[in-house]
Amino acid sequence: MENYSIVGKRIPHRDSVEKVKGSAVFTSDIKLNGMLYGKILRATLPHAEIRSIDISKAAKLKGVKAIITSQDTPLVKYSISPTWADQMVLDDQKIRYIGDEIAAVAAITEEIAEEALDLIEVHLAELPGVYDPLEAMKEGAPLIHDDVRNNISKRLTMECGSVEKGFAEADLILEDTFKTQAQSHSSIETHCCIATCSPTDDVTLWANSQSPHPLRQRLAGALNIDAAKIHIITPYIGGGFGSKIDLDPSQAISVILAKKTGKPVKIEHSRKEQFTATRMRHPTITELKFGVKRDGTIVAKQAKVVMDNGAYNSHGPAVLAYNNVMFSTLYRVANIKYEGCLVYTNKNWGGACRGYGDPQASFAQEVMLDMIAEKLNMDPIELRLKNANIPNEVTANAVQITSCGLKECLTEVKERSKWDEKKINPTKYRGLGVAAMIYTGGGSIGSGFNYSGATLQMNADGTLHLLMGAVDIGQGSNMILTQMAAEIMAVEPDSIRLTTADTDATLPCMGTFGSRVTFCAGSAVTQAANGLKQQLLENAAEMLEANIDDLELKQKKIFVKGSPQKSLSYAEIGAASFYKKKKPLVAHGYYNGPEEISPEFDPKNYRGYPAPSMAFAVQVAEVEVDPATGKAEILSLTAAHDLGRAINPLLAEGQIEGGAAQGIGWALMEDVQFENGKIVNPNFHDYKMLTIKDMPEISPILIESIDPNGPFGAKGLGEPAMVPTAPAIINAIYDAVGVRIKDLPAISEKIYKGLKEKELKTN
Amino acid sequence: MENYSIVGKRIPHRDSVEKVKGSAVFTSDIKLNGMLYGKILRATLPHAEIRSIDISKAAKLKGVKAIITSQDTPLVKYSISPTWADQMVLDDQKIRYIGDEIAAVAAITEEIAEEALDLIEVHLAELPGVYDPLEAMKEGAPLIHDDVRNNISKRLTMECGSVEKGFAEADLILEDTFKTQAQSHSSIETHCCIATCSPTDDVTLWANSQSPHPLRQRLAGALNIDAAKIHIITPYIGGGFGSKIDLDPSQAISVILAKKTGKPVKIEHSRKEQFTATRMRHPTITELKFGVKRDGTIVAKQAKVVMDNGAYNSHGPAVLAYNNVMFSTLYRVANIKYEGCLVYTNKNWGGACRGYGDPQASFAQEVMLDMIAEKLNMDPIELRLKNANIPNEVTANAVQITSCGLKECLTEVKERSKWDEKKINPTKYRGLGVAAMIYTGGGSIGSGFNYSGATLQMNADGTLHLLMGAVDIGQGSNMILTQMAAEIMAVEPDSIRLTTADTDATLPCMGTFGSRVTFCAGSAVTQAANGLKQQLLENAAEMLEANIDDLELKQKKIFVKGSPQKSLSYAEIGAASFYKKKKPLVAHGYYNGPEEISPEFDPKNYRGYPAPSMAFAVQVAEVEVDPATGKAEILSLTAAHDLGRAINPLLAEGQIEGGAAQGIGWALMEDVQFENGKIVNPNFHDYKMLTIKDMPEISPILIESIDPNGPFGAKGLGEPAMVPTAPAIINAIYDAVGVRIKDLPAISEKIYKGLKEKELKTN
Repeated sequence: MENYSIVGKRIPHRDSVEKVKGSAVFTSDIKLNGMLYGKILRATLPHAEIRSIDISKAAKLKGVKAIITSQDTPLVKYSISPTWADQMVLDDQKIRYIGDEIAAVAAITEEIAEEALDLIEVHLAELPGVYDPLEAMKEGAPLIHDDVRNNISKRLTMECGSVEKGFAEADLILEDTFKTQAQSHSSIETHCCIATCSPTDDVTLWANSQSPHPLRQRLAGALNIDAAKIHIITPYIGGGFGSKIDLDPSQAISVILAKKTGKPVKIEHSRKEQFTATRMRHPTITELKFGVKRDGTIVAKQAKVVMDNGAYNSHGPAVLAYNNVMFSTLYRVANIKYEGCLVYTNKNWGGACRGYGDPQASFAQEVMLDMIAEKLNMDPIELRLKNANIPNEVTANAVQITSCGLKECLTEVKERSKWDEKKINPTKYRGLGVAAMIYTGGGSIGSGFNYSGATLQMNADGTLHLLMGAVDIGQGSNMILTQMAAEIMAVEPDSIRLTTADTDATLPCMGTFGSRVTFCAGSAVTQAANGLKQQLLENAAEMLEANIDDLELKQKKIFVKGSPQKSLSYAEIGAASFYKKKKPLVAHGYYNGPEEISPEFDPKNYRGYPAPSMAFAVQVAEVEVDPATGKAEILSLTAAHDLGRAINPLLAEGQIEGGAAQGIGWALMEDVQFENGKIVNPNFHDYKMLTIKDMPEISPILIESIDPNGPFGAKGLGEPAMVPTAPAIINAIYDAVGVRIKDLPAISEKIYKGLKEKELKTN
Repeated sequence: MENYSIVGKRIPHRDSVEKVKGSAVFTSDIKLNGMLYGKILRATLPHAEIRSIDISKAAKLKGVKAIITSQDTPLVKYSISPTWADQMVLDDQKIRYIGDEIAAVAAITEEIAEEALDLIEVHLAELPGVYDPLEAMKEGAPLIHDDVRNNISKRLTMECGSVEKGFAEADLILEDTFKTQAQSHSSIETHCCIATCSPTDDVTLWANSQSPHPLRQRLAGALNIDAAKIHIITPYIGGGFGSKIDLDPSQAISVILAKKTGKPVKIEHSRKEQFTATRMRHPTITELKFGVKRDGTIVAKQAKVVMDNGAYNSHGPAVLAYNNVMFSTLYRVANIKYEGCLVYTNKNWGGACRGYGDPQASFAQEVMLDMIAEKLNMDPIELRLKNANIPNEVTANAVQITSCGLKECLTEVKERSKWDEKKINPTKYRGLGVAAMIYTGGGSIGSGFNYSGATLQMNADGTLHLLMGAVDIGQGSNMILTQMAAEIMAVEPDSIRLTTADTDATLPCMGTFGSRVTFCAGSAVTQAANGLKQQLLENAAEMLEANIDDLELKQKKIFVKGSPQKSLSYAEIGAASFYKKKKPLVAHGYYNGPEEISPEFDPKNYRGYPAPSMAFAVQVAEVEVDPATGKAEILSLTAAHDLGRAINPLLAEGQIEGGAAQGIGWALMEDVQFENGKIVNPNFHDYKMLTIKDMPEISPILIESIDPNGPFGAKGLGEPAMVPTAPAIINAIYDAVGVRIKDLPAISEKIYKGLKEKELKTN
């Protein structure tokens, strides 16, 4: 292993002191002079035509400064991609789910704004609603978007090889159906934004966005204004998990209200709004058919997926594509068929959510593999090793794998979890389950872009300043990326000044999602740092009359190797460059990869998915089921993650632990429940999440496969952390008590019911 | 003249809409959550030893969050240059003027902070004070800084040629003494700052600074912290005129209080504090001796100057140097001698103030020339033409002149003011006076640095973003510099997004002073814009398969000349570069000139003063004196200014008008008056300034000498605007009623007294 001083070290996050001491400023903490409070009037019916809106009474309320309806908006449709555009900031025709924005108020207090909402008179003509995607697809179902036939927003079909031929060759064919539920991102910080608009229509928006630069473009599109008139600032962010990538209607509304009033307008979601009016994980119904040889070789696999889109697209079409890619790319299978349908319903809409379609695919596939292993009487880990991806392969669906630590993950979890020992001597009601996963290790250029920019500057006094578009939403990128720059510049990370995610100060970055920041922003940062280092070396070589090759960086100085008395401090080089050479020391890095895109890449179904690297993981859960209640308790989770290189093992382990918590929650309890389109548990009392007391012991294992294209060999880790957790648990429950849960979450009642059914069968 | 589309146009300032509508945010407008208010306990004696400070009573006051004394400071001395360091944020030993900072309080309201100041018990041992620089220089005078003999902070001597020889050749020798008074900058916005300090000691300071980047360095020095831990943000600024260049003690104090309390701390000067505890124009006593030939040729000139420094150096040593340079460089004189003394007194200290030592020099020299013209019976304009500087000369004191429009200024004012006509047919009690000046047209590298950086970026959507360290304090640089970039990029100035004077976002810039921004920051901006243009052209040439030379920029597109159908929009080029070529479109400009420094440059006296260009101006005042009261009324002011090129004539004329107001004020009324070291008129009631009703008609004349090194040929204008006004007025008063005022201001009483003395002589 290379001899790094900063990279690979367990250094606490530079943001942690501020966060722990409570001085970190989040958007909610910001108050501006004369600031107004915005509140949004939301639909209380799931499907209706808007007949009229009367704001006259509300407008008379003292303290109300502005009320807007669709008349105050440009009525252009937008989405995260223009081709999927299906929503407006305020629709003038229809409401499509309970939560849809109808009007908004800015007032001098939150209370007055709320009161004004009650005074707005909305006349709706209710339409029949449809909440089940299978119902929504049927001929004659109510149409949610008039121009979308059968409510099918997107159909995706991909086949490679021939599943027909594959199934014909199989010794065993297994078919089953798996269902997953809606999960709320449940970031501790709700959506919050503050907009100001100058008389010259210059907009500043403080927003807790995972994607400030794209947000600028989307806001410009949705409001029909010039992006150059918009400045997005992201303060500290309290978690996103995908929920804060989109342009949220509240952000556009705050800008319109600010423009109308000439005052700053803040809109902050209540927890209820966060549940009912922001995104969630798409529920899915997955029918799988697998064909395997007696030795475990998977010869064909087929998936038919119906994904519940909710009322609007958001990331839906891409989530469906990722569901396909991750299902199809994991394991070496020659014959694959995927058919997916993304279906509108009159419900809260799905969006990007940690794993982005992969948890749903992995849950189905990994439970199916467990069922196959049982039928073949084969060890589930052996079955996976048999079919595991290998480095540098091109998969049947034309995906280029570079580094691949899947086999190492499998063998490591086996050892660390004492798999063999415990399988041979099982404890009653206890079981072990395994599951693997594949995910992008650095975003993808599939949608056209995967860019991240960074700038590293040296000041005349030798101090360094790193500016980057990437935003730390809690995952640790501020630290990871500073470490990379610090390693190259041979300084302590804390000594590097950092500016991030300010559209006026930094080069653009697509943002924090797709487990792309370490890889993409990291590539930009290392590029910038190497560029600046080169400039320093050139200056020093000239000043010291030495060859660049003879120079080395150490402790903010450049030395001539072997002549420790011949050196220049960074401050001396900085001063010489700024004052004598009259050249600022600035270097930029910009990544937008991968360089090579497979000629087979099909943007319709992401066959040939162009990710710069793929990450792998395997988790083993040990579970104990209480036969009296059906309650499953996780005893331990052993989580091996191929992350290329651990830039900071401390933070990497933190990501794995956080991912496990989210994965366990999704497996056992988290469930956004609807009745006729209405969420019935929009709060942390009724929506159950893990607390710290529920957390089992997590044993993270970092597999460093050293990706040839990653910065320092690193790949992404954030999303993978939660992907294999649920199937590992579900498989462990089966191992413990023989109950196979095929629809998440595995609440005690389901397991208990399974135990009772088994008893009935046995008796 | 070149065919420019944007440069040279009378475009209203882009900041004006926000300022006129009242939405521009100044530092005073900012309130942060939990913000405390800082107040400073100031000395009420002019000279004393600090025996003890008891803060115990004040600390008990409810609402007081912190009290600091010198014990909370690092006790390091600082100044604008380390070699002049003579003050501390809070001195632990002595107070040296009424206003000196002794302690400070942060409290939850301004009122409580004020109350707490009253409860701090300070025991002082009064020392004898000295207020007159001539007294202060005497052996045995009280010493203000223990290590400075005779209170002389700096002696400056320069001789070129031999004045002895020169005077021997002269047909006429004239000697006289001229005195100038202290002038307050009187910016409408007082000093204001807000500091925050994070638990990791990262400091953010919002401050109305003319020099945010140097402020960062000075703050770091005065507080012994790392400059990389400091972020300076400058909101809109309501005037500076030199007063906001220095590190003000209040800025350092707010940081210490923020660090101590963990809360934001705001300190805003009252108008009284602005008068009594910030800088002012240095008073001077100037003894001149001039030797001339009968034909008007000046053969020798000599100045002995005593400059009243007040209690601390601030810019004093450099102001003295500029007093010398501007006196010595104006007119072609072979034999020059200058002897200057900068003397400490127990008074409010001088600092940078529009003109920076030049108004004092010009007043003396230009009135002296009027006296010589009278003796020689020569037209004062002819006398000046006879001795005027010419383009591309190297003066006797080794200053390189590039462009020079002095003669054009003289002939233009003569014509426009109807000089000859009015001189031939004078009106009783009315008179015309003329005065010229020279000043740097773009700062100077004399103190080592004259840097300005700028960055121009194109976004992927083709929009442009200009980032520069320069700060618009009201003079118009945001507009001027945007115009330069807009001209080169062929876009409307308003379409360019602008970020300025934020130390985290922009390349460093020394700031706004020395009439350097148009020249230096303009050079950086044009460099950046030409760099970006080149990148666009290279992209377009490749994409259009054309030669760069055949391309032209027009309306946000690049065309192949002669083939209007072959073109690419900036958005197309932006998208191609960011997404396909994977290269951000960023260009930097950095100026730190002039390139060539005279080998004769002497940093002790600024002989060989290395400015990148010199600006010239001539003003003619027409005055009517009321014989009953002595009151002088300015009837008109004709002001010809050689500004190289007028980037925006509208704004240039605004500068001339503003400068005239300040010059008339200094000539006739503005006077910071002291009694035993105490300012007796620290308010706008007792300190008289011009109001809009007092303004005469100003006729600005823009002389475009097109400097070979200036951006688009431009040179600085800001400070020159006020320099010749006072001597022009004083000479006009003499022309009107024969009373020669040699000590400013020319208040009615002095003129009336002069009239009475003349009557006595005549009778």
